[in-house]
Amino acid sequence: MAILSDVATEVLIPLAAIIGIGFSIAQWVLVARVKLAPSQPGASRSKDGYGDSLIEEEEGLNDHNVVAKCAEIQNAIAEGATSFLFTEYQYVGVFMSIFAVVIFLFLGSVEGFSTKTHPCTYSKDKECKPALFNALFSTVSFLLGAITSVVSGFLGMKIATYANARTTLEARKGVGKAFITAFRSGAVMGFLLASNGLLVLYIAINLFKMYYGDDWEGLFESITGYGLGGSSMALFGRVGGGIYTKAADVGADLVGKVERNIPEDDPRNPAVIADNVGDNVGDIAGMGSDLFGSYAESSCAALVVASISSFGINHDFTGMCYPLLVSSMGIIVCLITTLFATDFFEIKAVKEIEPSLKKQLIISTALMTVGIALVSWLALPYKFTIFNFGEQKEVTNWGLFLCVSIGLWAGLIIGYVTEYYTSNAYSPVQDVADACRTGAATNVIFGLALGYKSVIIPIFAIALGIYVSFTIAAMYGIAVAALGMLSTIATGLSIDAYGPISDNAGGIAEMAGMSHRIRERTDALDAAGNTTAAIGKGFAIGSAALVSLALFGAFVSRAGVKVVDVLSPKVIIGLIVGAMLPYWFSAMTMKSVGSAALKMVEEVRRQFNTIPGLMEGTGKPDYANCVKISTDASIKQMIPPGALVMLTPLIVGTLFGVQTLSGVLAGALVSGVQVAISASNTGGAWDNAKKYIEAGASEHARSLGPKGSDCHKAAVIGDTIGDPLKDTSGPSLNILIKLMAVESLVFAPFFATHGGLLFKLF
Amino acid sequence: MAILSDVATEVLIPLAAIIGIGFSIAQWVLVARVKLAPSQPGASRSKDGYGDSLIEEEEGLNDHNVVAKCAEIQNAIAEGATSFLFTEYQYVGVFMSIFAVVIFLFLGSVEGFSTKTHPCTYSKDKECKPALFNALFSTVSFLLGAITSVVSGFLGMKIATYANARTTLEARKGVGKAFITAFRSGAVMGFLLASNGLLVLYIAINLFKMYYGDDWEGLFESITGYGLGGSSMALFGRVGGGIYTKAADVGADLVGKVERNIPEDDPRNPAVIADNVGDNVGDIAGMGSDLFGSYAESSCAALVVASISSFGINHDFTGMCYPLLVSSMGIIVCLITTLFATDFFEIKAVKEIEPSLKKQLIISTALMTVGIALVSWLALPYKFTIFNFGEQKEVTNWGLFLCVSIGLWAGLIIGYVTEYYTSNAYSPVQDVADACRTGAATNVIFGLALGYKSVIIPIFAIALGIYVSFTIAAMYGIAVAALGMLSTIATGLSIDAYGPISDNAGGIAEMAGMSHRIRERTDALDAAGNTTAAIGKGFAIGSAALVSLALFGAFVSRAGVKVVDVLSPKVIIGLIVGAMLPYWFSAMTMKSVGSAALKMVEEVRRQFNTIPGLMEGTGKPDYANCVKISTDASIKQMIPPGALVMLTPLIVGTLFGVQTLSGVLAGALVSGVQVAISASNTGGAWDNAKKYIEAGASEHARSLGPKGSDCHKAAVIGDTIGDPLKDTSGPSLNILIKLMAVESLVFAPFFATHGGLLFKLF
Repeated sequence: MAILSDVATEVLIPLAAIIGIGFSIAQWVLVARVKLAPSQPGASRSKDGYGDSLIEEEEGLNDHNVVAKCAEIQNAIAEGATSFLFTEYQYVGVFMSIFAVVIFLFLGSVEGFSTKTHPCTYSKDKECKPALFNALFSTVSFLLGAITSVVSGFLGMKIATYANARTTLEARKGVGKAFITAFRSGAVMGFLLASNGLLVLYIAINLFKMYYGDDWEGLFESITGYGLGGSSMALFGRVGGGIYTKAADVGADLVGKVERNIPEDDPRNPAVIADNVGDNVGDIAGMGSDLFGSYAESSCAALVVASISSFGINHDFTGMCYPLLVSSMGIIVCLITTLFATDFFEIKAVKEIEPSLKKQLIISTALMTVGIALVSWLALPYKFTIFNFGEQKEVTNWGLFLCVSIGLWAGLIIGYVTEYYTSNAYSPVQDVADACRTGAATNVIFGLALGYKSVIIPIFAIALGIYVSFTIAAMYGIAVAALGMLSTIATGLSIDAYGPISDNAGGIAEMAGMSHRIRERTDALDAAGNTTAAIGKGFAIGSAALVSLALFGAFVSRAGVKVVDVLSPKVIIGLIVGAMLPYWFSAMTMKSVGSAALKMVEEVRRQFNTIPGLMEGTGKPDYANCVKISTDASIKQMIPPGALVMLTPLIVGTLFGVQTLSGVLAGALVSGVQVAISASNTGGAWDNAKKYIEAGASEHARSLGPKGSDCHKAAVIGDTIGDPLKDTSGPSLNILIKLMAVESLVFAPFFATHGGLLFKLF
Repeated sequence: MAILSDVATEVLIPLAAIIGIGFSIAQWVLVARVKLAPSQPGASRSKDGYGDSLIEEEEGLNDHNVVAKCAEIQNAIAEGATSFLFTEYQYVGVFMSIFAVVIFLFLGSVEGFSTKTHPCTYSKDKECKPALFNALFSTVSFLLGAITSVVSGFLGMKIATYANARTTLEARKGVGKAFITAFRSGAVMGFLLASNGLLVLYIAINLFKMYYGDDWEGLFESITGYGLGGSSMALFGRVGGGIYTKAADVGADLVGKVERNIPEDDPRNPAVIADNVGDNVGDIAGMGSDLFGSYAESSCAALVVASISSFGINHDFTGMCYPLLVSSMGIIVCLITTLFATDFFEIKAVKEIEPSLKKQLIISTALMTVGIALVSWLALPYKFTIFNFGEQKEVTNWGLFLCVSIGLWAGLIIGYVTEYYTSNAYSPVQDVADACRTGAATNVIFGLALGYKSVIIPIFAIALGIYVSFTIAAMYGIAVAALGMLSTIATGLSIDAYGPISDNAGGIAEMAGMSHRIRERTDALDAAGNTTAAIGKGFAIGSAALVSLALFGAFVSRAGVKVVDVLSPKVIIGLIVGAMLPYWFSAMTMKSVGSAALKMVEEVRRQFNTIPGLMEGTGKPDYANCVKISTDASIKQMIPPGALVMLTPLIVGTLFGVQTLSGVLAGALVSGVQVAISASNTGGAWDNAKKYIEAGASEHARSLGPKGSDCHKAAVIGDTIGDPLKDTSGPSLNILIKLMAVESLVFAPFFATHGGLLFKLF
């Protein structure tokens, strides 16, 4: 029925993934050209011709000491990050192994560990593979997802810690050079992750098919483990990394900036290395795992619904692979988009950086809309049916094109609204900065109000996306809408990763004692990165809302639920308790950051008080001790929130059954998305209000400053409060809502068979 | 079938109300014995015999100037409060009149303004009165509810501003005397409000019955207007009063405490009168209207469900009046409970105050449990049926007893958890105080985390209450559970009103230049009042959650909805948008407080800078200007949040229909209750963390203090941030969730007939 043949599909998907990986390697090679060993001045410059057109003066190119110093600092950061991630992965590895056993036992018990085939749930005339093997393959795909997530996060961290000092060194030649180095490094991560996620999923499907044959119900049910594995790792990565980075950041700021009056990233501050390590393990590795999780989950949600729709029933392989084909197209579109930033145009001045990054979003969205139309036309039959809670619903290919597109464009709207509320170019943040005149209290009140307000438009955008895609193609529509939002993930991640790399580059410049001009250049990169980071978080939350709704739909479909009625006591109590979970979770993560930061403060104070000559720059701080405090605190404190999220679906499903669990998932979704958006944006606004006062770019900003004024001090307090909100609690909530939904989906057969023990007993 | 005859019911309900009003007047007479005109020393003391046993020394009894000064200040506060309330009521009056017309037109249009009778919706064999008359009577009961709410709030404010200076004067004789004066004044308000609400509702039912006769469906449908009227007024009262009080409070603190280093309530501070006025219009009048609204709404929700259950179908008047009988019993139980505080025991020392107030809650809850059992036994047949979304469900009288009791006890649990998280006698607040060591930022982070955490147990208590009462008696069970929680409202309000009266008394002592010992005594009263205020807020939120769920149930019943399926696009978009509304609303109210406070700060600064000798105490501040700023700001700023709440159900119901509206109500409920609890408790915790440091009662507290230390300054910042959270946004959210539900209930016939225009068009 579709124009694209199954063979072409079999070829195109891995091809796109391989092109993406190749492009990623190419970018890496370009970054690697910047030498960290002292070299002949101008050597790397001569390789591309446009260096001369940069308007900034080159400076300090011949200082061999600086290069050595940068290399040394980069090593320290990379070592700290690697050692933290290894420690984290060890602990999480134990947890994952136990959870793998739980998956196997729970799912195996569905048919009493029988090895006999049974009639399929949806295609009742066919025989499906035994539940025991579904359990086994679910466990395997769970581990596969977890490992892919680890690899994604780890590689991201590696390239980021490889690129940061190189960005610093390039900044000596001008802001344009530095921008390209940082952006290319981000692209390495973005493309590697998107391509890797697609490739592993594709290979897994093909390998599993060798066993499952025609039993696509079982095949795609097992594949959902991939999403669960990816997301579980992401949870620990986000929470652990989030606690790490903010404990170090808050601790360093409270003593360094507030008490000792030394600048950020000053090498005398003992927590400075830990702070820079934190950027890499939290914002890079954590964000990488998070978005990989979203991507894997939305693909799984789409696949599992498709498997019980006409694609699955008729064994239409190309139709089944529509979600993967959209992602493949996404990689190619993002590749072209990246060239606009790195090759088609060049950055000549600071003010061009932010527009250039924002152009990336618009270009990729516009191109992708065409791409989706193409894929929908080629890969889908004109009409097909989609499973809709008990019945089949007829859908057309252009209807599905609309679903994917509305997700894609809703993401762009969310991104732009986020920018409006967090960039200091607009009045919301300027109002917050202005409220600093009357002190920290009004700053905080205005900041909280801003965060609350920033929820409105994104929620309407999400609601519209849900309504349209749900009406057109039921839960499949929502799953592909989420995929649409994530289809430009490679570009999104490039931009996201660019931020922390620039941030680190600035830190290295400061620590290496490079001139103020270099620092100003990296600061300019970083400021643009802050805004795009906020946009990235908006995307992450928006897509998480759609993904978890899609997973929720897939869960109720697999669990055989036809109605989730708010007017039943089991559902309404689930709803209200589910809406409470984001608060419980945030309480844990915020308190963890607070406690860890207090420990960090004590250690930093102790070092300032006991190490002779530290303030004067003659004594050497003990960086390693601070790294250890952050590591220990985050490892210890990531367990309780992680357990809350991982255990809730298991306990609720087993004791209260699928109806209450459905309520919990819906409640957590509708409440969590608000908390997440408001926390992220409040934090982002405070950060940029502070930067607004520091930069003093307008008459109004100068009337609030300069650094060290009462207004600025009030702004710093807001910024510090915002740190755990925007980098720990907020982004972790994405994972909370997604993970509970995907876990419920994986365990759906068990809950449907054995769930609701408590109600059965009484 | 029931033991109690209809005639006995007809007598007992108004009797209880009249006893309550009589008791209230008696308390007022006792308070009035404290003379504000200079009198012979000891005159009032000789009238009751136990004055001698007070351990404190009497002081300043003969200072006639002080008495005159107190009277003068009291007048200023009373005048400010009266004038604000009049202005507020004028604006709200216009709004109410317009809304009354809207109600009449919308409901009248249901049957096209026809004056013909039509077959009843539920008792299909009977003829019901024309919709046009339902519209008329709904409008009348709406206005009745609004007027009763106004009267409740206004009388509460009157007695509070009558009692505050009297409490100050009694404090000269000892803390016990002052306590009794403040507590009796609170009781005047508590009993007046509870009895008044009951009496007006009872009279309205009896008058309406003269027209409706046997058409109880129509009768109780019209009566729901009473709840809507009460709650709409409460919304404006809470929001307007909340903005007023916090603008003045924050403004006064930011300049007075932070910049000028003068104590709270210092007469030199121009905003000090506005601050004290604010306590009376926000915490007294606002709280009174709020709880009256809850009470009226839960009664209406119970009545409307009962009218389509066996009570209504069989015209069992005593059974129908069960909710009113529970409230009547509540008045008697609270009356006995009050005697424990005022007559059976006496307060001899400061440390006895808080236990005495807390004992009130336990005594009333324990006695009320017996009372409920009695009413359930006497007024209910052993078995009866309750309408349960399309079918009738059999319920026993002891089952209903269980529903009411679980509501009552859930309230107590919520109260105690709130106390644990907001009293500085326990570790949560002490941890927050300890976080002040590292500055305001960690204080805020820990405070926010505390608020989030404090949500957990109350939500489980509410969920358990919902599950049990829903399972036993469907939505009627939830309505009576809410009534159970509110049955001890007279005691709850007495305790609540006691707090701001003591707070004002302290302010008057300070302004009248009385000795520090007097201020210490009123501070001790106030500290206990702070904790009980937090408990009261917990009650208010918990009952609001139950009430709005009951109203939601009544709404879907009246609208003929049988299922609200989360798995339908119309419902899920309602759910997610509904969950967003508390954020939108909070953004508005917080920003309003912030802006109004900024204006207040400017005015106070201006006066300090331009009025010669103000700081030295020789110049006189312009109090009236500050009162005007608070008044103008709150009147202007209460409109947008008020409109948001009032218009949302109308717009959603008319354009999107009952399914989406059901989703919005459920979403706002499950999200709003979390925001409200966490906001209230975070604010309460910051307030008490500050007081903990100021009081310095333990080794730990002293290590953080004294007043003016860096820790204390950080604590003051937290306290200021908490002000709008705990006194404006948080408590207003109760009303948001209740009001949207009751409004939907009143307009249910219209939405069921004409709703969902947008979906009908496309």
